[in-house]
Amino acid sequence: MFQATASVIIALLMGITGVGFVLWQTRRVLSYDQGNPAMRKIAAAIQEGASAFLSREYRVIGIFVVIVATIISWFLQWQTAFCFVVGAIASAGAGYLGMYVAVRANVRTAAAASRGLHEGLRVAFGSGAIMGMAVVSFSLIGMTVLYLVFNGNPAQLTYITGFGFGASSIALFARVGGGIYTKAADVGADLVGKVEKGIPEDDPRNPAVIADNVGDNVGDVAGMGADLFESYSGSIIAAATLGAALGTPQTAAAFIGLPFLVAAVGVISSLFGIYMVIGEEQDVTKASTFSDSTALGRAVLFLRKQVAKINEDASLEDLLTALRRSVWGASVVVLGLTLLTVIASGVSINYWLVILVGLIAGNGIAYATEYYTSYTEKPTLGIADATQTGAATTIIQGLAVGMMSTVLPVLIVAVAILLSIWLGFKADGTIAAGLYAVAVAGVGMLSTLGVTLATDAYGPVADNAGGIAEMSHLSSEVRQRTDALDSLGNTTAATGKGFAIGSAILTALALLAAYVTAAKIDNLNILGPTMLPGILIGAMMPYLFSALTMMAVGKAAHEIVFEVRRQFNVIPGLMEGTGEPDYKTCIAISTESALREMIVPGSLAVVVPLVVGFVLGKEALAGLLVGTMSSGFLLAVMMANAGGAWDNAKKWIETGQFGGKGSDAHKAAVVGDTVGDPFKDTSGPSLNILIKLMTIVSLVFATSFGSGWFSF
Amino acid sequence: MFQATASVIIALLMGITGVGFVLWQTRRVLSYDQGNPAMRKIAAAIQEGASAFLSREYRVIGIFVVIVATIISWFLQWQTAFCFVVGAIASAGAGYLGMYVAVRANVRTAAAASRGLHEGLRVAFGSGAIMGMAVVSFSLIGMTVLYLVFNGNPAQLTYITGFGFGASSIALFARVGGGIYTKAADVGADLVGKVEKGIPEDDPRNPAVIADNVGDNVGDVAGMGADLFESYSGSIIAAATLGAALGTPQTAAAFIGLPFLVAAVGVISSLFGIYMVIGEEQDVTKASTFSDSTALGRAVLFLRKQVAKINEDASLEDLLTALRRSVWGASVVVLGLTLLTVIASGVSINYWLVILVGLIAGNGIAYATEYYTSYTEKPTLGIADATQTGAATTIIQGLAVGMMSTVLPVLIVAVAILLSIWLGFKADGTIAAGLYAVAVAGVGMLSTLGVTLATDAYGPVADNAGGIAEMSHLSSEVRQRTDALDSLGNTTAATGKGFAIGSAILTALALLAAYVTAAKIDNLNILGPTMLPGILIGAMMPYLFSALTMMAVGKAAHEIVFEVRRQFNVIPGLMEGTGEPDYKTCIAISTESALREMIVPGSLAVVVPLVVGFVLGKEALAGLLVGTMSSGFLLAVMMANAGGAWDNAKKWIETGQFGGKGSDAHKAAVVGDTVGDPFKDTSGPSLNILIKLMTIVSLVFATSFGSGWFSF
Repeated sequence: MFQATASVIIALLMGITGVGFVLWQTRRVLSYDQGNPAMRKIAAAIQEGASAFLSREYRVIGIFVVIVATIISWFLQWQTAFCFVVGAIASAGAGYLGMYVAVRANVRTAAAASRGLHEGLRVAFGSGAIMGMAVVSFSLIGMTVLYLVFNGNPAQLTYITGFGFGASSIALFARVGGGIYTKAADVGADLVGKVEKGIPEDDPRNPAVIADNVGDNVGDVAGMGADLFESYSGSIIAAATLGAALGTPQTAAAFIGLPFLVAAVGVISSLFGIYMVIGEEQDVTKASTFSDSTALGRAVLFLRKQVAKINEDASLEDLLTALRRSVWGASVVVLGLTLLTVIASGVSINYWLVILVGLIAGNGIAYATEYYTSYTEKPTLGIADATQTGAATTIIQGLAVGMMSTVLPVLIVAVAILLSIWLGFKADGTIAAGLYAVAVAGVGMLSTLGVTLATDAYGPVADNAGGIAEMSHLSSEVRQRTDALDSLGNTTAATGKGFAIGSAILTALALLAAYVTAAKIDNLNILGPTMLPGILIGAMMPYLFSALTMMAVGKAAHEIVFEVRRQFNVIPGLMEGTGEPDYKTCIAISTESALREMIVPGSLAVVVPLVVGFVLGKEALAGLLVGTMSSGFLLAVMMANAGGAWDNAKKWIETGQFGGKGSDAHKAAVVGDTVGDPFKDTSGPSLNILIKLMTIVSLVFATSFGSGWFSF
Repeated sequence: MFQATASVIIALLMGITGVGFVLWQTRRVLSYDQGNPAMRKIAAAIQEGASAFLSREYRVIGIFVVIVATIISWFLQWQTAFCFVVGAIASAGAGYLGMYVAVRANVRTAAAASRGLHEGLRVAFGSGAIMGMAVVSFSLIGMTVLYLVFNGNPAQLTYITGFGFGASSIALFARVGGGIYTKAADVGADLVGKVEKGIPEDDPRNPAVIADNVGDNVGDVAGMGADLFESYSGSIIAAATLGAALGTPQTAAAFIGLPFLVAAVGVISSLFGIYMVIGEEQDVTKASTFSDSTALGRAVLFLRKQVAKINEDASLEDLLTALRRSVWGASVVVLGLTLLTVIASGVSINYWLVILVGLIAGNGIAYATEYYTSYTEKPTLGIADATQTGAATTIIQGLAVGMMSTVLPVLIVAVAILLSIWLGFKADGTIAAGLYAVAVAGVGMLSTLGVTLATDAYGPVADNAGGIAEMSHLSSEVRQRTDALDSLGNTTAATGKGFAIGSAILTALALLAAYVTAAKIDNLNILGPTMLPGILIGAMMPYLFSALTMMAVGKAAHEIVFEVRRQFNVIPGLMEGTGEPDYKTCIAISTESALREMIVPGSLAVVVPLVVGFVLGKEALAGLLVGTMSSGFLLAVMMANAGGAWDNAKKWIETGQFGGKGSDAHKAAVVGDTVGDPFKDTSGPSLNILIKLMTIVSLVFATSFGSGWFSF
């Protein structure tokens, strides 16, 4: 097992390196100028709101973690419970840090944008990079330290599944609770502000405006971060667990070590990608301290040349290219380094091909998502076209586009799974090796997470910066720049969602394979007696979950609407801008209702697998997971893409098409966008969590399930 | 095999009895009075339109059938091709007859309604009963005659799978093509008529009005009939095929015979149920020709007492009770007679329990559907409530209700499958017996199809009657009666959809089991190398199919809109009522575009299973079918119920709630209803066909598939 331990230590070191970057970058972002007093005041309100939300949420999470940890140590072992707690703390810590920086980077981005576009991008993206690298390194450090603590214990990997469960629990709160929070605040603020009172978006008179701004961060920083923290950890845990059961003890050590090494290599690659965006522009003709004739010197020169040069009049396409280059750059570096890693590990070169498959699949899904949701492409333009005949045709067309948009991601994932299993099988001759390869493909897809997540978590910072610029009446030039940064964020948010669901599926599949191994299931016949009921109930779960989260947004938004109306009625001078709105009450209401409304869907995700496992048996549970995975994948992609496409169809009309803002076409587009909001920001992304959480619960409790109440 | 042959002959005799009823009832319905000349003129236009549509569709079907039959006899055997042709003819014949009567019963219902409510119900329901009994008896006669023709041939049941494929092909045209036709005409007529020109629904000045009226029959008579013809035939074929592989040759004979006997018994029971609605009220105190003291006399007296008595001021609830009593009455008779049948067959009494499970499941799903779509219940009222905050919340709430409404049907079907497999397993000790039991549950669920289909196919007749009453300006009293009959039809249409999808799932599952047996698959591991890609692609198919059918409705409706606008522009005096609209062109456009738009989705349903079967192998194909079945079930229920609920939320507001017709709430509700139209009448029901057609194609070609291109 020496090789495995050595790999884990390398991963730990890279995790520590990542933390070093996070600390350095945090100081750097916070050292930026915060702009004028008006900006600072708004930013302070957002910061206060975010911390109110986080402290309330983390209190609830604390109670939840204690209860679940007690249950785990009661029914399983204290070690698993310990890992569960560590996983929860690691994920919550990364989320907290990411949020802490994001709500401070927004105002600094707005201020930096007054100095230039690239300067603004550098601050906002720098903040996203903190989230991205925090997720990656906290996850790596957590898992590797636990691995080393329990080293030598034959159940060490079993314990570490607890880490994944802990991460999943945080993801549940951050993604589902956060998703409800963000849309309740958004819809509530819009319904009274824009519709009833006729005041613009991001108007400081609106009592729900700060809750809305906080919500952007809650959803796309903390929520997305926790979601991908879970996928990242889950895919590594699954790969290591499956690897441990492969071949001789010696080859197993290589198989266990590989995912850690790939992740370690990913840290360097992500840092390279991040540098390409946030590095300072340099005159590469100027001599460096290193001579160009040495290898190190050439490397430094290469690195210096990679920094993106962004003109002040850069188009959305240019900015997108800059971000894309960073992700692609990181991918290329990962491929080079993992090739060396795979060769050095002594495993078949096929596993490198599998990493390639994973990376291509991840980027392929992101590309497909962009195609279906961008208003330069046919699908979204078709929706814009449909707005001319009213809201009904807008909805029908949007749903049709959402459904159609599932085809490519499904084919990509299906081919990736097939190729991975085939490559693994060809390498080591067993289907088990094939399933291990699927897990490695997942690790490969997520290896550059540090930078891909940076492109997502950057979005809300830019969005908030735009809001702050608007509310503090900065010059139109600055607002144009923040708008450009915001548009870019909307595009990366859409592709990020595609990537998140794609990686969730590969992770869940790997975890499922680990579950089947752990539960010692030998007959998984798809026509087995309890399998089909399991699959059907599983396929139903995403529908039930989505229905609950959509209704939750409705209820929570309703409460916000009442509060905002109340404030406009009782606070004198609020409408005139002389009265002070009470932002805190709106934040408190969003927080409370989000946490309350997530209880039922959240419990279902944990309880249903346990009930099915105990009542119908462990085979039915495998069926349940397959059903949820397949049906959830489809529904999540459909919802996310329909939502993104409606959003952009509206934005396209707002550029002046079909009569622009205020036209009948625009009104129809607003209906589509409003329907799309809970689709793309609450229900759709929440399904990632449902899929993974159900699977990890099953894996953690795998050994507890028998053959159920029905004897066959 | 004597027992099997004897059972088949009994089923044949009952089929012939059914045909006798159909002929008698057809004469009876056609003998009713056709009302005044204005009514006759409109009815003639509808009849002409229907026959134009049918002759065009049947010509295309004819070509399709010849091509497919040639392919089948080339790759498989001429016998299967022969059965395919017979299946297509039998289903098309039933559909033709049902349509023929329906478009003649509408005007007679309107005329009869002027004499009384029960009289109107009797004509409309009598027409539905013709469709119901034609489906049941044509299917039974077709299959039993083929069975007897090939008797003694060991592949006789394999050949008969061709009958199911033939029935499926007709269902594809009738449900998918018909679904596109009906909504294109409906949406097209409304968009120009109601929205642009401000003329009421069912206004004879609207050039698309006759196409719309024809469409009601195309969708809910021909479409629903062909859908259930396919389920009915498929479940019997699957049960017989699975039964043939069970136990010794002697017990196998009993197992093959059982589904035919259950179906035979169902014919009598359905006739009893139909009699309860359409029988003439009689003075039961009057002496009958049979003495009350004999068993026959008591039976006749009992029968005479069962006729529903419907008052002229009957509420919707009363009418519904009358129809429900007929279905429940038929179910009770089936249960009694099948108990005797099972005992006489010598198979385990568990198979009777399985029939009970099937009947309860079918009625349970229908009940759940009613709960979620009726405006007397909370879910639909919640949607009505959401109309007050606009179209967006109406859509969100409707989608949430649709998603939520999947829970009960899925649990019912899952429990029914689990119990059936368990009962079969307990009876004969193998999982194969359990799967046979699932097929028998499907046969049980569909045994009373003669009467349940009558309640569905009755709907469009009542709807058309209302339209004719409106267009020919009959008295308000008559229109009140036709409205009552129409409302009843809307409710039965919703529950009918639930029943159709539930039975489609059981049928598809039974066919899948038959496929697995026929393809000789022994390793169906859910984590097998090609299985998961198969499942994912399968789960994607319903989304792709729905996207295509929804877009098809949009395109076809667009063409109608242009034509209607054109006519209003060029025909002098059309708006004033002095010009003659050109109904035929609208009908021709609907027909052509429906047939054209169904080519892509229809081909996919046939081609994808074949491609997956050949490329990825027969195991992946099983995965594909499971994926399509589970994901399609969910999507179909969601779409059908969301559509039904939106429709009824609108109707509820039209009763005067929230400001009634013309209010903002009503406008929002209209958006919901318009989105719901293709959901519930095109895409949702089309999924039943997708699921079954893919399965039957796989079964027919089962022996042709190998292990695919990827070697494991």
